[in-house]
Amino acid sequence: MPVWMHPVRALAPVLAACCALAAAPAHAEWSEQDLTAAAALRDRALAGTQAMEHLTSLTTEVGPRLAGSAGDAAAVRWALNRLGELGFSNVRSQDVLVPHWVRGDAQVAIVAPFPQPLVGVALGGSIGTPEGGIEAQVVEFESLEALTTADEEAVNGKIVFINHRMERTRDGSGYSAAVGGRTQGASVAGNLGAAAIVIRSVGTSDDRIAHTGIVSYRADAPRIPAFAISNPDADLLARQLRSGKPVRLRVWSSARELPPAWSANVIGEIPGGERADEIVLLGAHLDSWDLGPGAHDDGAGVAIVMEAASLIARMERRPARTIRVVLFANEEFGLSGAREYARALGDEAQRHVLAMEADMGAGPVWRIESRVAPEALGSIDTFHEVLGPLELERGGNETFGGADLTPLVPLGVPMLGLTLDGTHYFDVHHTVNDTLDKVNPKDLDQSVAAFAVSAWLAATKQGDFGRLTPASE
Amino acid sequence: MPVWMHPVRALAPVLAACCALAAAPAHAEWSEQDLTAAAALRDRALAGTQAMEHLTSLTTEVGPRLAGSAGDAAAVRWALNRLGELGFSNVRSQDVLVPHWVRGDAQVAIVAPFPQPLVGVALGGSIGTPEGGIEAQVVEFESLEALTTADEEAVNGKIVFINHRMERTRDGSGYSAAVGGRTQGASVAGNLGAAAIVIRSVGTSDDRIAHTGIVSYRADAPRIPAFAISNPDADLLARQLRSGKPVRLRVWSSARELPPAWSANVIGEIPGGERADEIVLLGAHLDSWDLGPGAHDDGAGVAIVMEAASLIARMERRPARTIRVVLFANEEFGLSGAREYARALGDEAQRHVLAMEADMGAGPVWRIESRVAPEALGSIDTFHEVLGPLELERGGNETFGGADLTPLVPLGVPMLGLTLDGTHYFDVHHTVNDTLDKVNPKDLDQSVAAFAVSAWLAATKQGDFGRLTPASE
Repeated sequence: MPVWMHPVRALAPVLAACCALAAAPAHAEWSEQDLTAAAALRDRALAGTQAMEHLTSLTTEVGPRLAGSAGDAAAVRWALNRLGELGFSNVRSQDVLVPHWVRGDAQVAIVAPFPQPLVGVALGGSIGTPEGGIEAQVVEFESLEALTTADEEAVNGKIVFINHRMERTRDGSGYSAAVGGRTQGASVAGNLGAAAIVIRSVGTSDDRIAHTGIVSYRADAPRIPAFAISNPDADLLARQLRSGKPVRLRVWSSARELPPAWSANVIGEIPGGERADEIVLLGAHLDSWDLGPGAHDDGAGVAIVMEAASLIARMERRPARTIRVVLFANEEFGLSGAREYARALGDEAQRHVLAMEADMGAGPVWRIESRVAPEALGSIDTFHEVLGPLELERGGNETFGGADLTPLVPLGVPMLGLTLDGTHYFDVHHTVNDTLDKVNPKDLDQSVAAFAVSAWLAATKQGDFGRLTPASE
Repeated sequence: MPVWMHPVRALAPVLAACCALAAAPAHAEWSEQDLTAAAALRDRALAGTQAMEHLTSLTTEVGPRLAGSAGDAAAVRWALNRLGELGFSNVRSQDVLVPHWVRGDAQVAIVAPFPQPLVGVALGGSIGTPEGGIEAQVVEFESLEALTTADEEAVNGKIVFINHRMERTRDGSGYSAAVGGRTQGASVAGNLGAAAIVIRSVGTSDDRIAHTGIVSYRADAPRIPAFAISNPDADLLARQLRSGKPVRLRVWSSARELPPAWSANVIGEIPGGERADEIVLLGAHLDSWDLGPGAHDDGAGVAIVMEAASLIARMERRPARTIRVVLFANEEFGLSGAREYARALGDEAQRHVLAMEADMGAGPVWRIESRVAPEALGSIDTFHEVLGPLELERGGNETFGGADLTPLVPLGVPMLGLTLDGTHYFDVHHTVNDTLDKVNPKDLDQSVAAFAVSAWLAATKQGDFGRLTPASE
């Protein structure tokens, strides 16, 4: 255990308040030149990057890119070309077999007591309905929890409506609290004999736009068609339910599952110097939902990590370690790309010294957190210091890292969490509204600064961030 | 010409600054009791009305109500019932024959150079496409004016794209400036040999929601299918056009015209006292576009005028003149209801002393203007004074009045314009997003106050507002 770590932690508040970074002995795990370069990298990114150009290109020339679709294949080609044009080394694709679900069309309508069409979408992976659709009385639940404790008699033969409104939060916790209704509701309702399920969109927008996302059918439950309706439509349905008259819905969907298709992770590297076999991983996912061009989810992440690494490639100094950008296939539909990446790593897993992912929109980054060995926390404090002008909050040591990084956790890979501001993310996430015009280029540049500096510091640090074991998770 | 008018105008600024309303001799056209009642009416409305309940009922129990549709018929029944429940007298419907256009489905997609689906809708009244759709190269124009001066060679066989972005304004002038591309673009393009026309939505929303509204085919031009795409989709199309590569669109629509159908104006009255045969008209339109429940357009107007008159009915004093609420059929598709109302008036037109309409959303009212005989302008100043707490701007004497009032202009009917704030109106107008949750009840109440006070003052005023002749327009 390097002895320099503890002094750093003790000194950190003082350092932040008073001292030039390079002069502090506590930063001995970085050379003065590496710290100076980190600050210059930060300032260069804050002054303006090409991240918005990457994102403009992706959303204009590719657009929606659901796993298995033609857009997904176009995205792989786009990413290979783009990384090549930016001068990445070892640009390559890694084949990944992905599910191939096709949305088709959907209709949701109130047929009684006051007929009105609703704006609805099939949830991702939902089965379709019979050709004539399904019409049944609606039974409302305020949450997944309420549905879970319902009597079969109250649900059997009916269409379940989960009316759980997601709360707006900066850290996305409102999403986590509500999303169970989407992922698990169909199987809970199916086991109670429901004919179908319709949920209030797990999103914060008041637009008449419905929010998709994956439904997870349990093996032990009958599969029933699953839909989301927009927030204003959920309001309307709730108002009709308040009339006291029986409310009947008609749902129809032509969603279907095709045979699995080939997609690919796309990988490119900025080669390291004296420790080139050690890897700092910057991840994002290349796929998106089919409804929109995925500007925030996760085109922004793709642009951020691509640009962060590209800025490092253009520095005069070379990082000691290799910086690897991985654009994962199929995050949305079950993490196939992330699983394949982790599966194929073999011994290389041990040489992943730190991993970070951008997958909650365009930013800005507002918090820095980690999942590293306790002895390495002082290094994260240094990241925080160098990123001082970004005024980040200092989070804890239990970060989730990012969905695509979860298969690396059992392999002991340390994680850095650069938390993107999710306050408005769920206004557009998984909807047709996830478009380029909603992205603020300044936020994107700030995020690039955070990722570039962190990647640089991780790639130039003397010593590593420890290894994690499942017990330490 | 009553002699009392001129002194009022001269004194108005002084009065506004210093005097109790009832005490001023300049207000001799109203009794002290009528002015006191007006102020009480104002304060009562500002304290809270039932307008939001009317609007909630209409949007929940009826919803979309395009002329000729089942929803339109349901709206007529709803309005007859509601006016009856509120205690209106002479509640009746007036048959109106309306066009019956059916939207069907629509698809708009870029097929080259970078295929992407777009969010588009057929414009109101558009013909459909052949079953296989229409695919052609796109030619872009910045405005209707630019299209008007185009060469046939540049347009022939192509799909015209009018990329005119509407400006956000308080008075709706941004809409007027852009809407020509929607109403006239199809015929201008048709005469130049275009295969179809696609316009940027005439709306201010950055949601991926397209804006409908009527297209006016000229008799001398070939009819071509007409579509609108959302603002973000217009951005995307423009970006692909900037690539320099030929851009091809595919459009498809199953829109069609059915035989005309019967609808109705719905009318109810608060009977006057000593001059009951004279009428103060409060108008709004009952129909909406089919895409949404028309909460702002014009459910809000219906709720405002219904509630304004209803508040007067519940006063202890009875107005001298009759207050007539007219909920016009089919404003959106050619003003059939307004034309029929005016056509059937006969001699009664001469007894319409003042007309006002609420048809630009939920408010608040921010300006008071008029179209009255010059000698009656002092009375409008009094309206302005009594509405003092609303801090309205004092507009001119050339108000448009409202679309449904235009057939009354040639009949000489004086108009009052209570201008509703249109700043955010065109975010939702004519779209699926025109829903109840976007309405602020306080704005609605403020608007009720303005309409109720104005109706009351018009109905209790000694003398009239003059008559207008076409020459004075």
